[in-house]
Amino acid sequence: MILVVKSGGERAVPEWQACFAAVAPQLQVRWWDEPSLDPASVDYALVWDPEPGRLARLPKLRAIFGSGAGVDGIVADPHLPRGVPLVRCVPPEATQRMGEFVCWAVLSLNKDARRMALAQARAEWDWFEPPFAASAQTVGIMGLGAMGLRSAQMLLGLGIPVVGWSRTRKDVPGVETFAGVADLPAFLARSGVLVCLLPATPETTGLIAAPLLAQLPRGAGLVQVGRGVQQVLPDIIDALDSGQLSGAVLDVFDPEPLPPGSPAWSHPRITVTPHVGSLPSRLERARYVADCIARIERGEAPPNVYDPERGY
Amino acid sequence: MILVVKSGGERAVPEWQACFAAVAPQLQVRWWDEPSLDPASVDYALVWDPEPGRLARLPKLRAIFGSGAGVDGIVADPHLPRGVPLVRCVPPEATQRMGEFVCWAVLSLNKDARRMALAQARAEWDWFEPPFAASAQTVGIMGLGAMGLRSAQMLLGLGIPVVGWSRTRKDVPGVETFAGVADLPAFLARSGVLVCLLPATPETTGLIAAPLLAQLPRGAGLVQVGRGVQQVLPDIIDALDSGQLSGAVLDVFDPEPLPPGSPAWSHPRITVTPHVGSLPSRLERARYVADCIARIERGEAPPNVYDPERGY
Ligand SMILES: NC(=O)c1ccc[n+]([C@@H]2O[C@H](COP(=O)([O-])OP(=O)(O)OC[C@H]3O[C@@H](n4cnc5c(N)ncnc54)[C@H](OP(=O)(O)O)[C@@H]3O)[C@@H](O)[C@H]2O)c1
Ligand SMILES: NC(=O)c1ccc[n+]([C@@H]2O[C@H](COP(=O)([O-])OP(=O)(O)OC[C@H]3O[C@@H](n4cnc5c(N)ncnc54)[C@H](OP(=O)(O)O)[C@@H]3O)[C@@H](O)[C@H]2O)c1
Repeated sequence: MILVVKSGGERAVPEWQACFAAVAPQLQVRWWDEPSLDPASVDYALVWDPEPGRLARLPKLRAIFGSGAGVDGIVADPHLPRGVPLVRCVPPEATQRMGEFVCWAVLSLNKDARRMALAQARAEWDWFEPPFAASAQTVGIMGLGAMGLRSAQMLLGLGIPVVGWSRTRKDVPGVETFAGVADLPAFLARSGVLVCLLPATPETTGLIAAPLLAQLPRGAGLVQVGRGVQQVLPDIIDALDSGQLSGAVLDVFDPEPLPPGSPAWSHPRITVTPHVGSLPSRLERARYVADCIARIERGEAPPNVYDPERGY
Repeated sequence: MILVVKSGGERAVPEWQACFAAVAPQLQVRWWDEPSLDPASVDYALVWDPEPGRLARLPKLRAIFGSGAGVDGIVADPHLPRGVPLVRCVPPEATQRMGEFVCWAVLSLNKDARRMALAQARAEWDWFEPPFAASAQTVGIMGLGAMGLRSAQMLLGLGIPVVGWSRTRKDVPGVETFAGVADLPAFLARSGVLVCLLPATPETTGLIAAPLLAQLPRGAGLVQVGRGVQQVLPDIIDALDSGQLSGAVLDVFDPEPLPPGSPAWSHPRITVTPHVGSLPSRLERARYVADCIARIERGEAPPNVYDPERGY
C-alpha cells in the first residue's frame, strides 16, 4: 500500500517514513513530488496544502488525510475528487494540545503575560496588580467540535466558567450553550474572553470584525485559534486601541507566515504565536492515520470525515 | 477597633480604607507611620515587611495579619511579639490565583512561550514543533499546603499527572505523594517539571541549587513561586546552559526587585515575572482579614496561623 505525503515539505519525508515504519510497516510512504512515483499506484494521501488538481490525478485514491484538524487548504482545490473521503486529523493528542493552548492563552490574557514579556525585555521590574482571578471571567468558545469541547472541559477544570456557541445546539455538561446566528449576540454578551475554534467556511470568513467585537463586554480578551481568514486584523487592533478589547492572543493569520511588516508583531496588547495551537507530533498523527487506514481496509468508516454539504 | 496597615506603602492606604469600609465598616484603618496614632490604641496590624521591633511596640495587639501567604518578611523580626497570633493571608482567591499561575507557567514551559516571545520581538515567524503535550510530562510540586494543593488539583483538571512532596506525608486524591528528606530523590526523579511552593525556612533556604537540579530528569522545567532565598540563581543558569533544565519561570528573587543587571532578565530560557504568582486583590484580602477578625472577636481561632515551631 502506498501513502503519498505532502506535509512539512520534502525534508519532512524521512521523519514521516520513520513514524509510519513504527506504526504501520506495511505502508510505503512516498514524497508527493517524487518523479518515479506512478500516480495509479497511490492508495492514500496525507496532505496540508496540495496544489489544486493534483489529488484528482491519483485515480485509485481510497482516502485523503488532512495533516491537521482544519482542511480548508485542501477543500480550496476546485478539482478535489468527489467521492473520496477527506479525513480531518484529530488524534486525542490534538484536542489535548489545543485545550492546553487555549488554557495557556486565556491565563496569559488574565495575567497579562504580554506586559510581563515586554517588561522583561526592558529588564524592568514592572509589578502590577492583576484585577481579578481568571475564574472570575466567563470564557465564550465559538465552535464546540472536537477542539472546542476539550478546551471547554479543561477550562472548567481550572474553575473557569464557560459558555459555548455552535451551528447546531450542543448539550455540554457544565457549559451554557448557544446556537446559530440568532443566539450570537446573547453569547457574545456573556464572553469576557472570546475563543474562536471555528472552521474556515464562507459563514465564518470575516466574522471576527468590528460588529462582532462591539458586542463583547468592554475590555474583553480574544483568543483566535481558528483560521486567519476569520479575522479582520485592523478591526482587532482598533478594538485594542479603543479599550473595547484588553488583549489578544492570535495564533492564525491571513496570510501565513504573518509578514514582517504587520503591526501585530509590535502591538503591546497582541501576543503573536506561529500557528502552533495544536500540533500533534508526526508520530501521533501517523498512528491516527494508520488506525484510520486499518478501519477503511476493514470496510469501516473513518472518523472526522469532512462534510462538503456543511463545508467543514 | 483600629487596624494599622503597612502593605503597598502609604499611597495604598486610601484603597485599603475603601476596601475595609465595604466589608467591615466598624474597623478604623490607619497608616503605619501616622504620627498622631497612639500605639496603645491599635488592635490589629496588617503588614508585609514591618521594620523590626515596630510590632513589639503595639501593646494591645490581638493579631498580626500577613498581607500575603508567606510571612517570612514578618518573622524575620527578632522582636516579633510572642503570643500574638500571626495569620497568613490565604483567601480562596489566593489559592485559585496561584493555581492559575502555576498552570500558566507549566504550559508556558511546555509550549516554549519564552521562545515565542523572543521571536515576536524580532517580528519573526519562528514555527517549531512542540515535542509533546504538557499532559505527557509529570509535574512535581514541592509543598502541598494551601497553594500546592489547589495547584495540584488544577493541573489534574488539565489532564497533567502530578506528584507531590511535603514535610509530613499527605493524602491527596490522584496525586502520588512523597515526604521528607528521605523521599526527595525519588520525588525529583519523577518531576518532569518541578514547581516550588515551599515556605522560606532554614530547611528550604538554598534548596534549589546544583545538587537538587542534578536529580531531575534531563531537560526538566522549573517553576519557582516560593521565595527567592530558596534558589541559587547561578546554579539555575548553569543547569539551563548545560541542558539539564530546558526552561524556567521564576517569580521570586533575592533580592526583589530583581536588579537590572541580573543575567536572568535576558536569558533565553528564563521567564521573569515580578512576584505576581498569587496576588489577591485588596478587597479580597480585606474580606479575609475582616472575617478572621470577626472570628477572633467571637473567641474563635483564626485559620492559617503561623507556627513558630515548624517555622511556617
Ligand atoms: N490553530 C491551530 O493550530 C488549529 C489546530 C486545529 C484546528 N484549528 C481550527 O479549529 C477548527 C475546529 O476544529 P474541530 O476539530 O473542533 O472541528 P469540528 O469538530 O468540525 O467542529 C467545528 C465546530 O464549529 C461549529 N461551526 C461550524 N460552522 C459554524 C457556524 N457557521 N456557526 C456556528 N458554529 C459553527 C460546529 O458546529 P456544529 O457542532 O453545529 O457542527 C462545530 O461545533 C478547525 O477547523 C481549524 O480551523 C486550529
Ligand atoms: N509567588 C507568590 O506570589 C507567592 C504567593 C503566595 C505564597 N507563596 C509561597 O508559597 C508558600 C506556600 O504557601 P502555602 O499557603 O501553601 O503554605 P502552607 O499551607 O504553610 O504549606 C507549606 C507546605 O510546604 C511544606 N514544607 C514546609 N517545609 C518543608 C520542608 N522542609 N520539607 C518539605 N516540605 C516542607 C509543608 O509540609 P507539611 O504539609 O508537612 O506541613 C506544606 O505542605 C509560601 O510560604 C510562599 O513562600 C508565593
